[in-house]
Amino acid sequence: MDITTDFPIDLPDETIKTALIDKINNLTKPKGSLGRLEELALQIGLIQQTLTPALRHPQNIIFAADHGIVDEGVSLSPKEVTWQQISNFVHEGAGVNFLCRQHGFDLKIVDAGVDYDLPRDKGIINLKVRRGTRNYLYDPAMTKEEAILCLERGAEIVSHCQTEGSNILSFGEMGIGNTSASSLWMSLLTDIPLEQCVGAGSGLDSEGIRHKLEVLDKAMHNYTGDGSPADIIRWFGGLEMVMAIGAMLQAARLKMIILVDGFIMTSCLLAASRLHPEVMPYAIFGHCGDEAGHRLLLNAMHARPLLDLGLRLGEGTGAICAYPIVDSAVRMLNEMDTFAHASITKYF
Amino acid sequence: MDITTDFPIDLPDETIKTALIDKINNLTKPKGSLGRLEELALQIGLIQQTLTPALRHPQNIIFAADHGIVDEGVSLSPKEVTWQQISNFVHEGAGVNFLCRQHGFDLKIVDAGVDYDLPRDKGIINLKVRRGTRNYLYDPAMTKEEAILCLERGAEIVSHCQTEGSNILSFGEMGIGNTSASSLWMSLLTDIPLEQCVGAGSGLDSEGIRHKLEVLDKAMHNYTGDGSPADIIRWFGGLEMVMAIGAMLQAARLKMIILVDGFIMTSCLLAASRLHPEVMPYAIFGHCGDEAGHRLLLNAMHARPLLDLGLRLGEGTGAICAYPIVDSAVRMLNEMDTFAHASITKYF
Repeated sequence: MDITTDFPIDLPDETIKTALIDKINNLTKPKGSLGRLEELALQIGLIQQTLTPALRHPQNIIFAADHGIVDEGVSLSPKEVTWQQISNFVHEGAGVNFLCRQHGFDLKIVDAGVDYDLPRDKGIINLKVRRGTRNYLYDPAMTKEEAILCLERGAEIVSHCQTEGSNILSFGEMGIGNTSASSLWMSLLTDIPLEQCVGAGSGLDSEGIRHKLEVLDKAMHNYTGDGSPADIIRWFGGLEMVMAIGAMLQAARLKMIILVDGFIMTSCLLAASRLHPEVMPYAIFGHCGDEAGHRLLLNAMHARPLLDLGLRLGEGTGAICAYPIVDSAVRMLNEMDTFAHASITKYF
Repeated sequence: MDITTDFPIDLPDETIKTALIDKINNLTKPKGSLGRLEELALQIGLIQQTLTPALRHPQNIIFAADHGIVDEGVSLSPKEVTWQQISNFVHEGAGVNFLCRQHGFDLKIVDAGVDYDLPRDKGIINLKVRRGTRNYLYDPAMTKEEAILCLERGAEIVSHCQTEGSNILSFGEMGIGNTSASSLWMSLLTDIPLEQCVGAGSGLDSEGIRHKLEVLDKAMHNYTGDGSPADIIRWFGGLEMVMAIGAMLQAARLKMIILVDGFIMTSCLLAASRLHPEVMPYAIFGHCGDEAGHRLLLNAMHARPLLDLGLRLGEGTGAICAYPIVDSAVRMLNEMDTFAHASITKYF
């Protein structure tokens, strides 16, 4: 697989844009008065190339894996929480579960590289590339071959979702240690100083954050790769994160809407966009999370998230919370009457 | 009716607070990681005095009326848009309609004082107090008796919603000219200078806003009342706005959740809270709208709205958009598993 050519993503054709704007401006409301809903309606109309878009079979895919760097004490949570939380997803007791139920999302749980033998009879999709990454303080987290395998498998699962009828997907992650990888990607791919990219993760205190920064700073100094996005991605990345990149790129290739979750998934989209900038028009940013660095990263990407609720749970929760707003935008376009038809004096 | 005594609102009993916080902190997520959802869960648990709250039969009530001040050219929209838009609500083609359908809200449309003979067979609830307010550039918008009638009728409709099984209501408004009344209330009840309270309404340009400010400034100087909140409310208020105040106060009295919409409904809550401060713990602020002054008003009330989507449509749309977040908070409390039960290492 050649990652620079195997995701031929088309930018949305802008021919339909004028007709979309005209339709939005003639709905029975003061022009622009539905704010972000109007912007979303335009974006989705462009993605789907229609004046009457539809959202079909939303799914949230959680990619899970472990991180070798956790041995260095960068996370408050012990590594075992990765598989324990997956078990919680399976038993439907986690944050992501009630949100999926509430908003009609199917949930796919993908073992991208958990360092534990997960049960094979619980609906967990086994795409394990290896049992956790190597510790990138000393070695690249994964080989090039492993990274490509992650991208391919992420793409495959999205293709499968398309055959199931989905045209909108959110992505989430479970992997103790993955805010560390995200901070390194962010710093190396945007040139924002590392200390502005590092935060509390699942709840470090200031001493813990200081130690995390020290470890990550050392890891950055030990980096001896070629500095290309592809190399930075595989050197520090989590297996679940690289799989999410493959998933996002494939979703854009298939003209699906990508709902972007928190800090980690935003880092994955950043990385995806460094490989293929054409992914961006397919992305809707669900929320600004509470992890330090997320707001800065969103700003660096010129992204305006829909929600700002202080969430920092991951799992796709922030993206799913934003779904009803996306749904509202589509309903606006399909269900609102026009001034002419409703016989209302158009006053602008 | 004595408005200072006829709404005996209890502050929520805080005895249950510790148990609520304990429950929230033991759900399977890093402590605090569901941000605003956790705060909402606590607020709703306190309102309903239970660890397992429920949202029942949400309804949006739109109060509609006309404003005498519109004769002075303070609005871009002609007065006839008030009744035309009500007709659009009835035919389900407006912004509020698709949002009600999406989120399972019943919609009540109340004629509080529209200057038009609305049809009586379309489900519009006729509580008309008079055909529009007087022009407050010269006279008080309504008499004390009319204001009390508005409060009483607003309270009655909320009591009726309770008998229908509702425990959560949002309120919206339709009334060309009502941003003008809201700006005056805001300035007079918070001491924020009028020019910071006046905005574009349904779409005035800067020249139009200058004229609107000039008219409102003159109206303020012509005010000869006693300066009490009750007097300011009736002098400048819209009939639909005073009815909304009665509705909000009654909702709090009946321990219902009040979803607050945009600039106008926030002004109504401000006014309600100047009569009865105990209304505040029952209010959830749905969104920060795009009308100038709304953000400032929210800040003055120490309110943190859930959404910030640039909406400025009114009708209750911003409040209804926020409903799924409120629903998520309740589901979190009822549906998430605890660390102990899910056998997950509690890592904080």
